[in-house]
Amino acid sequence: MKLIHDPIYGHIELDEFAVRLVDTPEFQRLRRITQLGLAFLAYPSARHTRFEHSLGTFYLAKRIAEHNPEIEEGAVYAALLHDLGHYPFSHTLETLYPRHEENTKWFIRHGEISDVIRERYSLKEFLRFLKHPLVSGDIDADRMDYLVRDAYYTGVAYGLVDLDRLVRNLHYDGERLIIGEKGIMAAQSLLLARSMMYPTVYGHHVSRIASAMLVKAVELEGLSLDEIRVMDEVDLVARLRRSEKDEVRELVKAIDDRRLYKRVLYSGHDPGREFVGDLMRELEAEFGHLVLVDYPPKPKFEEKNAFVVADGRLKRLSEVSPLVRSLVELKDTHWRWGVYARADVRGRAVEFMEDFFGRRGVDFAIQKP
Amino acid sequence: MKLIHDPIYGHIELDEFAVRLVDTPEFQRLRRITQLGLAFLAYPSARHTRFEHSLGTFYLAKRIAEHNPEIEEGAVYAALLHDLGHYPFSHTLETLYPRHEENTKWFIRHGEISDVIRERYSLKEFLRFLKHPLVSGDIDADRMDYLVRDAYYTGVAYGLVDLDRLVRNLHYDGERLIIGEKGIMAAQSLLLARSMMYPTVYGHHVSRIASAMLVKAVELEGLSLDEIRVMDEVDLVARLRRSEKDEVRELVKAIDDRRLYKRVLYSGHDPGREFVGDLMRELEAEFGHLVLVDYPPKPKFEEKNAFVVADGRLKRLSEVSPLVRSLVELKDTHWRWGVYARADVRGRAVEFMEDFFGRRGVDFAIQKP
Amino acid sequence: MKLIHDPIYGHIELDEFAVRLVDTPEFQRLRRITQLGLAFLAYPSARHTRFEHSLGTFYLAKRIAEHNPEIEEGAVYAALLHDLGHYPFSHTLETLYPRHEENTKWFIRHGEISDVIRERYSLKEFLRFLKHPLVSGDIDADRMDYLVRDAYYTGVAYGLVDLDRLVRNLHYDGERLIIGEKGIMAAQSLLLARSMMYPTVYGHHVSRIASAMLVKAVELEGLSLDEIRVMDEVDLVARLRRSEKDEVRELVKAIDDRRLYKRVLYSGHDPGREFVGDLMRELEAEFGHLVLVDYPPKPKFEEKNAFVVADGRLKRLSEVSPLVRSLVELKDTHWRWGVYARADVRGRAVEFMEDFFGRRGVDFAIQKP
Amino acid sequence: MKLIHDPIYGHIELDEFAVRLVDTPEFQRLRRITQLGLAFLAYPSARHTRFEHSLGTFYLAKRIAEHNPEIEEGAVYAALLHDLGHYPFSHTLETLYPRHEENTKWFIRHGEISDVIRERYSLKEFLRFLKHPLVSGDIDADRMDYLVRDAYYTGVAYGLVDLDRLVRNLHYDGERLIIGEKGIMAAQSLLLARSMMYPTVYGHHVSRIASAMLVKAVELEGLSLDEIRVMDEVDLVARLRRSEKDEVRELVKAIDDRRLYKRVLYSGHDPGREFVGDLMRELEAEFGHLVLVDYPPKPKFEEKNAFVVADGRLKRLSEVSPLVRSLVELKDTHWRWGVYARADVRGRAVEFMEDFFGRRGVDFAIQKP
Repeated sequence: MKLIHDPIYGHIELDEFAVRLVDTPEFQRLRRITQLGLAFLAYPSARHTRFEHSLGTFYLAKRIAEHNPEIEEGAVYAALLHDLGHYPFSHTLETLYPRHEENTKWFIRHGEISDVIRERYSLKEFLRFLKHPLVSGDIDADRMDYLVRDAYYTGVAYGLVDLDRLVRNLHYDGERLIIGEKGIMAAQSLLLARSMMYPTVYGHHVSRIASAMLVKAVELEGLSLDEIRVMDEVDLVARLRRSEKDEVRELVKAIDDRRLYKRVLYSGHDPGREFVGDLMRELEAEFGHLVLVDYPPKPKFEEKNAFVVADGRLKRLSEVSPLVRSLVELKDTHWRWGVYARADVRGRAVEFMEDFFGRRGVDFAIQKP
Repeated sequence: MKLIHDPIYGHIELDEFAVRLVDTPEFQRLRRITQLGLAFLAYPSARHTRFEHSLGTFYLAKRIAEHNPEIEEGAVYAALLHDLGHYPFSHTLETLYPRHEENTKWFIRHGEISDVIRERYSLKEFLRFLKHPLVSGDIDADRMDYLVRDAYYTGVAYGLVDLDRLVRNLHYDGERLIIGEKGIMAAQSLLLARSMMYPTVYGHHVSRIASAMLVKAVELEGLSLDEIRVMDEVDLVARLRRSEKDEVRELVKAIDDRRLYKRVLYSGHDPGREFVGDLMRELEAEFGHLVLVDYPPKPKFEEKNAFVVADGRLKRLSEVSPLVRSLVELKDTHWRWGVYARADVRGRAVEFMEDFFGRRGVDFAIQKP
Repeated sequence: MKLIHDPIYGHIELDEFAVRLVDTPEFQRLRRITQLGLAFLAYPSARHTRFEHSLGTFYLAKRIAEHNPEIEEGAVYAALLHDLGHYPFSHTLETLYPRHEENTKWFIRHGEISDVIRERYSLKEFLRFLKHPLVSGDIDADRMDYLVRDAYYTGVAYGLVDLDRLVRNLHYDGERLIIGEKGIMAAQSLLLARSMMYPTVYGHHVSRIASAMLVKAVELEGLSLDEIRVMDEVDLVARLRRSEKDEVRELVKAIDDRRLYKRVLYSGHDPGREFVGDLMRELEAEFGHLVLVDYPPKPKFEEKNAFVVADGRLKRLSEVSPLVRSLVELKDTHWRWGVYARADVRGRAVEFMEDFFGRRGVDFAIQKP
Repeated sequence: MKLIHDPIYGHIELDEFAVRLVDTPEFQRLRRITQLGLAFLAYPSARHTRFEHSLGTFYLAKRIAEHNPEIEEGAVYAALLHDLGHYPFSHTLETLYPRHEENTKWFIRHGEISDVIRERYSLKEFLRFLKHPLVSGDIDADRMDYLVRDAYYTGVAYGLVDLDRLVRNLHYDGERLIIGEKGIMAAQSLLLARSMMYPTVYGHHVSRIASAMLVKAVELEGLSLDEIRVMDEVDLVARLRRSEKDEVRELVKAIDDRRLYKRVLYSGHDPGREFVGDLMRELEAEFGHLVLVDYPPKPKFEEKNAFVVADGRLKRLSEVSPLVRSLVELKDTHWRWGVYARADVRGRAVEFMEDFFGRRGVDFAIQKP
């Protein structure tokens, strides 16, 4: 058994098998994948990595499993490995490549870590564990850890959750983690915390702009999935810094120096995918990499799978909590799309956009320099 | 004025001139210099950087200056920039290159940041501010920030200091920061915290071994001062990864994968510089980069400059605090030198060392595999 | 100036006038008025008093005033004194006597503290300050302090609020504290925290039962307003312990020993004031002090006065925050009325209630022993 | 099993037998015995009680026992009950009555709690458990809890200890709790924390003066051991408030109003018991209760029983830690004796003392008003 220091839980105990999984190059790579991508440009202290988060998820999964002996051990190890497939800067590049969950499956099948897993589990069996509600529910060990951890590292006050109470009140029914009556308030609090972390941290506009710039650089560099999937952040940044394309080197230097593009448009009004597609093409033709469009998918409200036992009956959490219900309504409130331009072309971009909107007969709040 | 989120102080306010200093490539580079070097291999969550620490030092320096109007503003900006010259992985490479303070002076004279400084100060003037007791005393803003910050990020319990009380009780006499009577306990507590952070965090053997490996890799790569001084950690690691020398690539891969050398010897008994020099040469000849000797300088006990006013008289802190006095005695207690070998040559290294010690007639506790 | 240690804010500075207000018997009495009344029977560590809370409210009021120079100093001192009139065990006895705000006004007019106030302010002037939005709004210094403080002392995770951000973003317009755009999330978080503290702490059933018992004891003892208004908790408990009435002594002993009445009914369904009045009278006739009815007023949702500036316009907070809107809907969710009986008559009380409900043709969930 | 909320440990689990012990009037009385006596007059937030501390000690004792299966269960329950005998305001009145440990033994033999204990243990057996190293060593569950708890409630920065690491590294050898090598730093830190809490909190002069006043009031009231031993703080304060002696009522009112006596002398120089005895008698004859002498025993340095295993050998902690060694030297540093006078006789008291010292040919620093 090995003890790892952690500022959230004090110490995390790793049994011998967990140590062997952690001691592989594939898992150690997570030390070089920032948990919150480029959010450190808005919250300088947010430098924690997928490594600590994976250990923390394992810790919580194990504690939940201790209260639910019918949870198989394999699911707890799956909690440890659930983020193995993250690309450099975590979610940032998922607009260009398959979601990291797909890449996690790829890692399970390759390299040293795959050999270690196969000592105990068939790959098919283990891949099934990755879908276990311990790490893929609305109230799960993954989410519990990242909210509290992200709040700790950013210093933001919205991630406090009574983890102890929640862990003690999650009951596995063979299919789902059901929240016991005494855990309802803590579960509600977790979903609220998440809804407040979104606009404050995860979707902070500084992080959004920097991400759009990085996505463009990687796209221009033309990295294949096979290349990117095994990279860490050193590999990626070094590769972009010595790119043969001026635009790529320029973009990565601007991120390094925090000389970010400026907002030309930042709006919660959605003109539709087609409209934005047209705009993107015209801007691309006119400005190349100097003006970027950021049109993220709408956040899914995923509470539908949080079940509680209240008054002896199984209910959705939203049935018993008006606050959770209102999260459905809330989900689009903080959605924004944006157009960002390099400072020196901002004026021109504004003009271009005014013209474009004028042609389309749309009235939009453009942010003038 | 700009507000920056910080988990230690809530928010750090930057005035316009501070913003301009921070918004230079030279300062932004600090985001990619880990505060504790390779300590994250022992404390995974210790991923904070010189960037946050510099902002924190500025914050405390400013608060101290608010209580001491005679402190010049330039000294507070110097606090912001005092760590500008750190090499990748902070202190790790200072065995190969001049101390980072020298490099800070170099940065003050070069690049964009130098231009910004010169708008307000002559370089000569500003270089003098870098020696101000605000950042170069035994009880100063630098040390106050790093102890509390390092404790926060590692999760170690030994860094708690009553910063508020200390800040309120530091009185500048034109030359030194004198500790007022009500701040004595807090100052003592700071020095004790530091003495406990040393063996626990700063000198953790995992960090020591990895550092020795990195030093060897950089040494083999033969990087000049002009090259290293402007590098960040991405530059350095990427450079080592694509080295033409097998040994360098092997060493950096071992650090990445946390496959660290094992201790062959780890001892607090000092056989003298000459003896160790001989050993080093013989090991080098026999094992090359596979066995490393780590012979650090003895820690200096720097309390000699902490002054207090007690019973109306100026005294050294050690005069009024037996605990601080005992830190003098303590200073060598945690000093260790070590010999580390790659796992597969550890057995051979042990034999070699036994032979070497035998020849010299020295009896040493060698750590057998 | 005097510094007072406080675990929430580090140190609270008191100017000379504040010290003189604090150093009166009337203010010192607050040290013996528990902030959360009998909640310590559910949360043993909740032993903090109105004294610390008053100092904390003063601290926040002062910080808000520093950002808003047009706030008069008197309003900040009013924040210090706003809770002067609390009865023993805070809100518990407000069902028997005028609200504590009335009693605060009485204190302002009597005793040493009145003399100190009148050195600077006319009483009329000062009484007006007590209605200042600093302490009587929806987002005010009072509420900001008690939520964070109550969370700290109970150890409950629901009271975390970004006070620093909120303080920096409250703008006084001569009439109200308006929340600036950057403070919206923190303000929303405060109202949510409050809505979660209600069922978890403030309305915890253990506290409710003990309160009903204390109210009955005080009622039976027949204390006049003139007696109770100047009492502290020592006075009240000592008086009840040596009451001439057996029932009073029995009730206070049961609270002391935490041998609380048991729930016969605990329901969120409101049968109406008249119905409950009839039940109360019949239970009283049959059981005397052995069965108690607790029929609290519905919580008011007081958000109506929280204003924000968003997109340059003054709006209600509920307009811009769906979560805050849902608090209106939520407000009754956690309301409960209860019937509590001494353990040995619980069976009889259940029978009696079943009979009563039967006669009325009402179907109620009675909690059988 | 019952869960109790606690801000230090999150939740404390009580098994059924522990619940029965806690649910006795004797244990519930601890809710009305302040942990730090009158220290709240210096640290307003220090309102925690022996009740929470007893639960916390039980929690830590249980965790230590989980790592040491040979520790008998009875010792863990003894940890829960070890403070049962504290008088009102904890240690304050131990100068007038037998130490609280004696009173704990008395409680073990009387009342409901005695009946519960005897269901499982003979009294002789249980009294032996009270001396178990779990609660009567230098590094024990009692001390671990109170340091951390007192720091939390006072907001003082000196009580942080790595409890988790310490708990994991205490090994019971049938006689003592031996500190394992990895726990040495945490154990040293605990003893240092204690040495800093003494002057800062436990021996704060405000608390010392108020305590001297209370001791005098109780002495004048002439309460017998049989009376005081079962009192809680309500009983005691109420009794003193309605005393027939003017002096007693005056003293307790002065404490209530925080109108404390002033220091006439406060010195670390010890003139000897006999000298102080003479002074006390003369002051008593001249001033009665208006001038009080506070001559506390020297603190014992109790580290002698902290054993560690280092380099495979059993050693005293002081052998391996120079800092702990220096605590021996330190122990008298913060000792003070004092003479305190009611403000209006302070001048006269100074004159009297000068005369007394003059007659004795002693030169003392008297604090002139």
